[in-house]
Amino acid sequence: MFSITVRDHLMVAHSFRGEVFGPAQRLHGATFLVDATFRRPELDDDNIVVDIGLATQELGLIVGALNYRNLDDVPDFAGTNTSTEYLAKVIADRLADRIHQGALGEGARGITGIAVTLHESHIAWAGYERAL
Amino acid sequence: MFSITVRDHLMVAHSFRGEVFGPAQRLHGATFLVDATFRRPELDDDNIVVDIGLATQELGLIVGALNYRNLDDVPDFAGTNTSTEYLAKVIADRLADRIHQGALGEGARGITGIAVTLHESHIAWAGYERAL
Amino acid sequence: MFSITVRDHLMVAHSFRGEVFGPAQRLHGATFLVDATFRRPELDDDNIVVDIGLATQELGLIVGALNYRNLDDVPDFAGTNTSTEYLAKVIADRLADRIHQGALGEGARGITGIAVTLHESHIAWAGYERAL
Amino acid sequence: MFSITVRDHLMVAHSFRGEVFGPAQRLHGATFLVDATFRRPELDDDNIVVDIGLATQELGLIVGALNYRNLDDVPDFAGTNTSTEYLAKVIADRLADRIHQGALGEGARGITGIAVTLHESHIAWAGYERAL
Amino acid sequence: MFSITVRDHLMVAHSFRGEVFGPAQRLHGATFLVDATFRRPELDDDNIVVDIGLATQELGLIVGALNYRNLDDVPDFAGTNTSTEYLAKVIADRLADRIHQGALGEGARGITGIAVTLHESHIAWAGYERAL
Amino acid sequence: MFSITVRDHLMVAHSFRGEVFGPAQRLHGATFLVDATFRRPELDDDNIVVDIGLATQELGLIVGALNYRNLDDVPDFAGTNTSTEYLAKVIADRLADRIHQGALGEGARGITGIAVTLHESHIAWAGYERAL
Repeated sequence: MFSITVRDHLMVAHSFRGEVFGPAQRLHGATFLVDATFRRPELDDDNIVVDIGLATQELGLIVGALNYRNLDDVPDFAGTNTSTEYLAKVIADRLADRIHQGALGEGARGITGIAVTLHESHIAWAGYERAL
Repeated sequence: MFSITVRDHLMVAHSFRGEVFGPAQRLHGATFLVDATFRRPELDDDNIVVDIGLATQELGLIVGALNYRNLDDVPDFAGTNTSTEYLAKVIADRLADRIHQGALGEGARGITGIAVTLHESHIAWAGYERAL
Repeated sequence: MFSITVRDHLMVAHSFRGEVFGPAQRLHGATFLVDATFRRPELDDDNIVVDIGLATQELGLIVGALNYRNLDDVPDFAGTNTSTEYLAKVIADRLADRIHQGALGEGARGITGIAVTLHESHIAWAGYERAL
Repeated sequence: MFSITVRDHLMVAHSFRGEVFGPAQRLHGATFLVDATFRRPELDDDNIVVDIGLATQELGLIVGALNYRNLDDVPDFAGTNTSTEYLAKVIADRLADRIHQGALGEGARGITGIAVTLHESHIAWAGYERAL
Repeated sequence: MFSITVRDHLMVAHSFRGEVFGPAQRLHGATFLVDATFRRPELDDDNIVVDIGLATQELGLIVGALNYRNLDDVPDFAGTNTSTEYLAKVIADRLADRIHQGALGEGARGITGIAVTLHESHIAWAGYERAL
Repeated sequence: MFSITVRDHLMVAHSFRGEVFGPAQRLHGATFLVDATFRRPELDDDNIVVDIGLATQELGLIVGALNYRNLDDVPDFAGTNTSTEYLAKVIADRLADRIHQGALGEGARGITGIAVTLHESHIAWAGYERAL
């Protein structure tokens, strides 16, 4: 199985609801390093997993739509705890949609899996992976 | 599949028995960065994998019981080579026990897998993963 | 010249005023990795720069007073752009005060300089250094 | 499942053919951090995955045969795009051959999987994993 | 003294002349992580060292002019060993020129020092610093 | 001012005397990542700070003489707390001696400063710098 990963980042405010979150129930923020991994069993005709330029660009667009925002005010997340693991799924699902739409190129249709890891600090990170 | 990972560290002395270990047969030491990963297919009611506060606390207790020691003198490891990969299993199994005991909260009962990685330097690390 | 550095981190929301900040004028957030460095020309009687336990504890208290907050609502920062470089100075100055108060131990009175670096992402960080 | 990983690096020139590569069609270069992971379900008689000294040595020999070269001039790669993901496979396959030849020791015959990750920068990496 | 640092990267081929370089006399390549640091004793009116957007953009232009090239073919470097330390100076000097030209904004005229660090691998880096 | 840095590492046991060290008074251990920096105002005739091969080799010899040992049993350190900051000085001074002996080449006589940083974990490091 082959994979490639590209990294971007995101700087957002948010708050959580639920006693389990302790002081993180207050409005605070995070820098999330976002690592998006694309997997496939065989390389395409150019000997790659995906056009890394397109992968970087599409990840950048998805990240850009969330960046420099208070996630508590983003309608898509109304009533939802935007935990690190949940945001990983949001980004993975949006990347999957873009692949299905052909935005990462025809060769990208051979991609069989996506994994997204969000690092919230040097001592904590979360991830989500799914089939395509 | 979702996951979260928390990092702690451990500073211990130990020695190895067996020619394969070369100079590491002498009493020496290591800082192990300890990354504990918790996996589950669906998030809990708070939209998380596990209470990251409890996960950090429990990992800290397990690491604390080993920290600042000569592992050659720890009864649990008598006659055992405390290799990096072996210590990863020790920590993973102890975390699994704590989850089964409910120490990471009721929501943590949905965790289906644990992985522990120990970094012994910037150029070598080892891991162990298991189902729960 | 000797030095030691300890790392902690901070997760806050804030916004900036001024066109130069572009989209960062919106309420957003950041994880800041906080590296606090203590410098002195000679070691103390224990052969160290400072008690690393106390240094870690005092940095933790200073970071804890800011953590999980919206800095726009913190009275100390009213009307101030809480840029990364500015926050580095805030933390350095507070550490200097604590050293002067004796909170890092008598030996710490030999410290002649402090530097604080705040990493806001994997591609940007800022710092402030001062004499004591 | 247990694993160990060792890291080495590689500094090479190369160029790519295909419009998808944009400016990387020109002769350029890369430092690849090379992480080689060895996996097995049970540890050997010394309580390890593999002799880390031999693993490091064999990875060093494979990396050394490629290092400080223009990959466009290496006969093995004639007519091939030496993408990061492809090079990960080359190194993984060569490690597998060496294990089969016994170069990593008799104990290494218990290894059931290999994964190789090549980091081409702080924001992009690729990997290949295979059974043994 | 305040500072900010931004990171970019560069992927180039080159070769060295001189026996001291051993196998690096052959055409090979490197990824250089490029860290550009800007220093000044007081912050500007926006409470920052420099507009980080402009700093990132200007570093990107300087890096972009060198990127995906064989440095042996770049006229500016004819007859010169493009060592990591030398390239750090090239980039620092070009940044200094851009500051003098006003490309980093009027506020940037308060910058008194620049440092550039180029990481050629996880185990080697070089730097150059200068006054402005 | 130019600099180059090379990284090696060290895995040792040791203990500390003094209440300030708390549990680190027990025999424990550490992996120290060792970063050795060489500084000079002008490059040599090969356009470098120092032959990086020789610098790496000499650092490796100094590190090798300490590696895989219990520092409590090393005669040079009898009665001395081998703190991270102290060990940084030991390594810096030994490197300085080797430069004075010509072991890093004639060109290395232009080196005017050395700095050594020892990372004891991902959250603590110490350093020593001196003129030559």
